[in-house]
Amino acid sequence: MSTTSSFVNGKPQASLSLNDRGVNYGHGLFETMYLSSGQLPLWHYHRQRLHLGADRLGISLDSSRLDTYLQQALEAVPSDGILKILLTAGLGPRGYRQQCRSSSYAIQYFPFPPVAKAGDLRLQRCNYALPHNAQLAGIKHLNRLDQVLAADELKEGYDGLLLDVDGNVIEALSSNIFLFDGQNWLTPELDLCGVAGVMRRLLCEEIMPNLGLHVIVKPVSLASLLNASEVFVCNAVRGIQPVYELAGLARWSFQPSGSETAIVMKQLSQTYPYFRP
Amino acid sequence: MSTTSSFVNGKPQASLSLNDRGVNYGHGLFETMYLSSGQLPLWHYHRQRLHLGADRLGISLDSSRLDTYLQQALEAVPSDGILKILLTAGLGPRGYRQQCRSSSYAIQYFPFPPVAKAGDLRLQRCNYALPHNAQLAGIKHLNRLDQVLAADELKEGYDGLLLDVDGNVIEALSSNIFLFDGQNWLTPELDLCGVAGVMRRLLCEEIMPNLGLHVIVKPVSLASLLNASEVFVCNAVRGIQPVYELAGLARWSFQPSGSETAIVMKQLSQTYPYFRP
Repeated sequence: MSTTSSFVNGKPQASLSLNDRGVNYGHGLFETMYLSSGQLPLWHYHRQRLHLGADRLGISLDSSRLDTYLQQALEAVPSDGILKILLTAGLGPRGYRQQCRSSSYAIQYFPFPPVAKAGDLRLQRCNYALPHNAQLAGIKHLNRLDQVLAADELKEGYDGLLLDVDGNVIEALSSNIFLFDGQNWLTPELDLCGVAGVMRRLLCEEIMPNLGLHVIVKPVSLASLLNASEVFVCNAVRGIQPVYELAGLARWSFQPSGSETAIVMKQLSQTYPYFRP
Repeated sequence: MSTTSSFVNGKPQASLSLNDRGVNYGHGLFETMYLSSGQLPLWHYHRQRLHLGADRLGISLDSSRLDTYLQQALEAVPSDGILKILLTAGLGPRGYRQQCRSSSYAIQYFPFPPVAKAGDLRLQRCNYALPHNAQLAGIKHLNRLDQVLAADELKEGYDGLLLDVDGNVIEALSSNIFLFDGQNWLTPELDLCGVAGVMRRLLCEEIMPNLGLHVIVKPVSLASLLNASEVFVCNAVRGIQPVYELAGLARWSFQPSGSETAIVMKQLSQTYPYFRP
C-alpha cells in the first residue's frame, strides 16, 4: 500500500507508535465505511457510533479535527472503496491508567474486496461464545480477540455465526443478523455483547419503518433462527446479504423477487443507490 | 524515546504498521520484564507464558528469531530498567480471519518508574467486573480494555483491586494478589479471567515451596480477603509489595520483620537478589 492511502493525524503515515494506547491495550475504536463516488453515505451514523464509543472508553474525539483529517483523506484517495477510521486514546506512558488525552486519528483506504457471488452466504456456527460485557457491548472497539478466535474455527467459504455465553444468537463475524419469523423481522438485542452495526441501525430506524415494518429487537434463540423463514446479514460495506445456509442446521432459499428480504433490499437500494443488491 | 530503545523484527523502529493485527484487533501478547545488570532474571517464565499465549491465539512464535531480537536489544539498551516484548500476529489483510503468519516482534526499553515509598500500596476496589473467558484467561494478551476501564475509576495514589462477575477477588490492576488467612497462603484461581503473572508462578512453584509452604490456589471471596491477616501483591517488575489498605473496607499493618510476608520477601530476595524489598 502506498503511503498516500494511510494518514495519521492528518499526515501521510502508515503506522502507529509503539507507545500508542491503541497498540498496547486496544484502547481505541474503528469504523469501516463504504466509500462511493467520493462520499461516505452513512457517515452520520458512523460518526455517532464513534462518539458513543469514545465516551464509553474515555477517548477524546475532536469533531473538527476528525472532519479535517477525513476531508484530507477523501481528497487523496480513490473515490470508491472502503475507508477505515481508527481512533485510539493516543500516546501515553506505560501503564493502564490514562495520563493524557492525545488521541490518534488514523485513516486508511482499501479497494473493494472481491464481491461474493449470489447464493454464496453460508454461515457456520462458531463454538466460541461471546462473553457478556455491558460496558463494551455495541461499540466497535479494538479488543477483537473474540472475533479472531471465532474466525479461526471457520471452514473455507463460510462466514461465522456468533452466539453468546447464554446460547443466544448475536451476530455474524462482521455483520448483524436479521430474521423473518413469518410475521415480523427480528434482530438480536446487543446490550451485553456484539457490535451494533450502522447498517442494522439504518434498517431499523429508516428502511424498515419506511416500508411500514417494525423490527423487533430482542434476545434471539438458536431455535428461533432455525425456524425463521428468511435470514439475512448486513453491514455498512456489503449492504444486505441473504443467508442460504447455517451449516448442518438449516437452509433457506432466497427469492430475488417477492420475498420479504427482497422487499427490504429493494427499499435499501432505492434509498441508498450505493447498496445495489 | 530515541529509536535505539525500540526495535521491531530486529530493526530500530518505534512503530507498528496500521496493517498489523495487533493494532487492529489486539491480536497479540506482551511481556513486561525486569532488566537487571543486562539480565532478564525471570526470562524462562516469561518465555513460557509467551509460548502458551501464542498457542492460544494462533500466533507463530519462532524461538530463535525471538532470541536473536532479544539479544540484539539487550546489547543496545541500558543494563537496568524494564524490557517489554510485544508479539503480534503481524501483517495481514483487513478482516478477522488470519490469512498469513508473519508475526511482529517488538521490543522496547523503559527506565525504571519512580519507586513507590514503603507503606504506599493502597488498593481501591474497582466496580468494573472482569468478565469470564476461559480461552483468554491467564495469558497476557493485548485486549486490555477491562484494565483500562477499571483503572479509570481509581483515585490518585491507589492501585485497583479487580473482582470478577461472580464477585470473587481476581488480581490487582497489574499484579497478582496473595493473602495469608492465619494458616496458609492463598491466591485466586485464574482459569476464567485474570493474568497469571510470572512472579505469582515463581512464588507458587519455587519461593514458597523452598520455605516449606504450599500456596492454595482457589476462588477467593471478597470476605476472605477482608478477613486475611496479611495481603501482598506481586509482579515481575516490582517484586512483592505488602498491601496496607483496601479503601473503606480493610487495613493491614505490615511488620518488616517477623511477619509471614516479610519471610517470603526475604526468601525472594535471597534467591533473586534483584528483588530487594
